[in-house]
Amino acid sequence: MNEEDYIARYKKRNFDAPLVTVDAVLFTYHENTLKTLLVKRSAYPEKGKWALPGGFVSESEDDGLEATLIRKLKEKTGVIPPYVEQLYTFGGPSRDRRGWSITVAYTALIAHQSCEISIDTVSDVNWLPFSKVCQLPLAFDHLDIVNRAHERLVQKALYSIVPAYVLPETFTLPELQHVHEVIIGKPLQKKSFRRRIEQANLLVDTGEKRAEKGRPAALYRMREDSAAYNFIRNLEL
Amino acid sequence: MNEEDYIARYKKRNFDAPLVTVDAVLFTYHENTLKTLLVKRSAYPEKGKWALPGGFVSESEDDGLEATLIRKLKEKTGVIPPYVEQLYTFGGPSRDRRGWSITVAYTALIAHQSCEISIDTVSDVNWLPFSKVCQLPLAFDHLDIVNRAHERLVQKALYSIVPAYVLPETFTLPELQHVHEVIIGKPLQKKSFRRRIEQANLLVDTGEKRAEKGRPAALYRMREDSAAYNFIRNLEL
Repeated sequence: MNEEDYIARYKKRNFDAPLVTVDAVLFTYHENTLKTLLVKRSAYPEKGKWALPGGFVSESEDDGLEATLIRKLKEKTGVIPPYVEQLYTFGGPSRDRRGWSITVAYTALIAHQSCEISIDTVSDVNWLPFSKVCQLPLAFDHLDIVNRAHERLVQKALYSIVPAYVLPETFTLPELQHVHEVIIGKPLQKKSFRRRIEQANLLVDTGEKRAEKGRPAALYRMREDSAAYNFIRNLEL
Repeated sequence: MNEEDYIARYKKRNFDAPLVTVDAVLFTYHENTLKTLLVKRSAYPEKGKWALPGGFVSESEDDGLEATLIRKLKEKTGVIPPYVEQLYTFGGPSRDRRGWSITVAYTALIAHQSCEISIDTVSDVNWLPFSKVCQLPLAFDHLDIVNRAHERLVQKALYSIVPAYVLPETFTLPELQHVHEVIIGKPLQKKSFRRRIEQANLLVDTGEKRAEKGRPAALYRMREDSAAYNFIRNLEL
């Protein structure tokens, strides 16, 4: 038998295979709080529980894992998040009662403003404050996934400006600092934050200003798509 | 219908699901070179090509993904690598001719000495220098996986002593420095390397010595399992 014959005769369904899903921990920043998008499950198993947005990877998808995840997120939010990164793959015999399953989990960030309208129209999808999410009985192992995504986001907030993706396209330095503080969970020194950000040269001054506590603050945007991923020196130091 | 009925009636095989495998990029250090373990495929598809050690995740595995990976690696090397970390999950419709497939890829490190004997007895398994592996027509998308694992390892070599896991339990600082240099691909300053490692306080002086270019060099071991993961300041600076 040659390889062509082998492929022609191969029947995937004759073999045991785990269930495969993709799930996203989608973060945003709203009302001075870090929030996570959750979906109330309308079907068994775990019916009625809050869960991460996501779904099954089926053979009909004609592109890769990340494209599948983005499509599922777009169904819920109406938009494509500007930041999507693979987080970790969770798998085992007991995370889903339907059988051995794996989920490829992603972290995604989006500005609240850019998906407000489409999310408000759906009743089973909601932004919940991260601090509350941790106390909910989430479906499956989704609480583990949320916690791992948050840990990773804290690291990003210490060493990069990836958190800027939860803000609109232009933002002030005090706004960015507050996002970092909310994620890290403690205040940062204003002077040292500003210096680190400037040294890293990741932002462009748009020339526009916005009143911030009465005083005009410069509006910045990210230099380019990749800039936010660049390492900067630990912001806590 | 309640959840119990739903689970009882659920037939996984009625649904399309991707093929699921785990694969490892196992690195070691031997003859002053970074090497990767490859297995020659004895079956279709991609018969005769070199591939990463790994295999299908089947429903009969009664523990998680990492345990499955470790079991598959042990079948090839006879031992359990001291360092195993999930790298990335690759998936899509065209990476395996048998159909939509995903592989959860891991990076693993092992000292050459600890698996020398069992690997020498198997003819279809071999340690190949990383520089040569990059030029082979590897099976599936395994070359992408190897390259991604190497990129990640370079980052680890810059910011941690994770590379020490390719050395035997005790080693000298010049040995460790050489491993870092081989991985990073350029020489490091001896004085600054020694200072960074000492500052990070990750090693324990065993009190023993070994002749290193004629002079006795102190033998160290890692402080504890987790120490190697700790960040140290960029070794290049």
